[in-house]
Amino acid sequence: MKKPILYHMPVCPFCQRVDILLTLKDRRDDIEVQSIDITQPRPEALLQKTHGPTALPVLETADGHIVKESLVILQYLDEIYPERPVAQRDPWRRAVENMLTRMDSEFFMPGFGWLRNQDPSRRDALREGMLKQYAQLNDFLQEHAPSGPFLFEDFGWAETVFTPFFQRFWFLEYYEGFTLPDEPRYARVRQWAEACLAHPAAQQVTKEEVIKLYYDFSKGAGNGSLPPGRTRSSLVFEPDWRSRPWPPKNKYEHSATDAELGL
Amino acid sequence: MKKPILYHMPVCPFCQRVDILLTLKDRRDDIEVQSIDITQPRPEALLQKTHGPTALPVLETADGHIVKESLVILQYLDEIYPERPVAQRDPWRRAVENMLTRMDSEFFMPGFGWLRNQDPSRRDALREGMLKQYAQLNDFLQEHAPSGPFLFEDFGWAETVFTPFFQRFWFLEYYEGFTLPDEPRYARVRQWAEACLAHPAAQQVTKEEVIKLYYDFSKGAGNGSLPPGRTRSSLVFEPDWRSRPWPPKNKYEHSATDAELGL
Repeated sequence: MKKPILYHMPVCPFCQRVDILLTLKDRRDDIEVQSIDITQPRPEALLQKTHGPTALPVLETADGHIVKESLVILQYLDEIYPERPVAQRDPWRRAVENMLTRMDSEFFMPGFGWLRNQDPSRRDALREGMLKQYAQLNDFLQEHAPSGPFLFEDFGWAETVFTPFFQRFWFLEYYEGFTLPDEPRYARVRQWAEACLAHPAAQQVTKEEVIKLYYDFSKGAGNGSLPPGRTRSSLVFEPDWRSRPWPPKNKYEHSATDAELGL
Repeated sequence: MKKPILYHMPVCPFCQRVDILLTLKDRRDDIEVQSIDITQPRPEALLQKTHGPTALPVLETADGHIVKESLVILQYLDEIYPERPVAQRDPWRRAVENMLTRMDSEFFMPGFGWLRNQDPSRRDALREGMLKQYAQLNDFLQEHAPSGPFLFEDFGWAETVFTPFFQRFWFLEYYEGFTLPDEPRYARVRQWAEACLAHPAAQQVTKEEVIKLYYDFSKGAGNGSLPPGRTRSSLVFEPDWRSRPWPPKNKYEHSATDAELGL
């Protein structure tokens, strides 16, 4: 039988969710993965399959159906491979992880917004906004899983959903000097994030990769568009990020050239 | 055994989703419903249970757990009452309805945004924005359910999610003169919306009720806040909406008083 095909982009957090789930289920080898370079026009074959919009990830099922949206793909894969369930099966437990899942965009939007900010006078407000989101996660975990480290016994659905963003937010540490304050207010969410970051199923990206590939975002560009004066995106596949120097941290004072970025 | 308690507000579209699902499952009598007047401070007992945020609906389960977010509540109820399932059980079918469900906020946000708009020069752009959303739904239905009228055989999960907004958008017809153009571009979504509006499980609100209760939104106020010069919200429970006159349609030229609105 034909394998399902996952169209993904290596550093995309939504794509990584699918990678994590497949790793947890030990189904990584049952899926064919096609990497898409988002700095290039989308392949015609993919455009025809998705009828236009090609936000990644996209899953082509074994019988040729197209599934979009990372959370929809997660549920689909968790259902077609029912062994090692990742989502909770008890209705109340499932409701708890669904409530936490519904907080995802409120959490990641301010992080990406801050990374892309170009106005230094807004930094304090953006920091406060980010801390507010961590505090909300802290409250939720404190209420539903006070002892931790995970929401339930093991790294599961909620951790699959959030871990890619804990990893992406390494860019806030590097470009904005943001780390979660060592205060009781954030103790439970810090415990959660640390346990998520350390989990063997979630090691698809490294800090170095995230920081190098997201440089253009730190200059206000996004998803393959270019900052002024540049000719190659920091998201290109070649040269490989491992061979490039670390980007300058001072995003508000300096705009790195292609050459400085090793592009 | 104690019944689950649903805290809801009668004209709230998210609350109506839960009412529709319970009606489809013939479980309306298994739930105790407590109506919340959002023009008043929230009852202290509810605040204590939800730990602050009290966006409606809120479900208190039979054993005292609190479930928030309409889609999470729908799934929880569909699972604890497994007879007459509303969500699809086949993974691919479930993925289809989940993809459509993920389009919900892109659909309803522009509708509410247009209702609350106070700048007549923006009307054409807002109309275009709304039509774009209908076109997207049309494309989705055309791809996955070309013959219709519903996404699958019967009124189900996707219809439960969207019908309250087809009904709320009666306010666009009244206050903005918006109706879906009679063009092939929108034929499939019109067929869907009409079948949804006609379904016996979805008759919790009437056009008159929606138009009278949402008057303040049409003047740019929201969720119980008051337009200038007014002392009572159009969302109050008393006087009952049935006893009030129809509000003036000319939202851009005139601001109705409490007396004109029968408040």
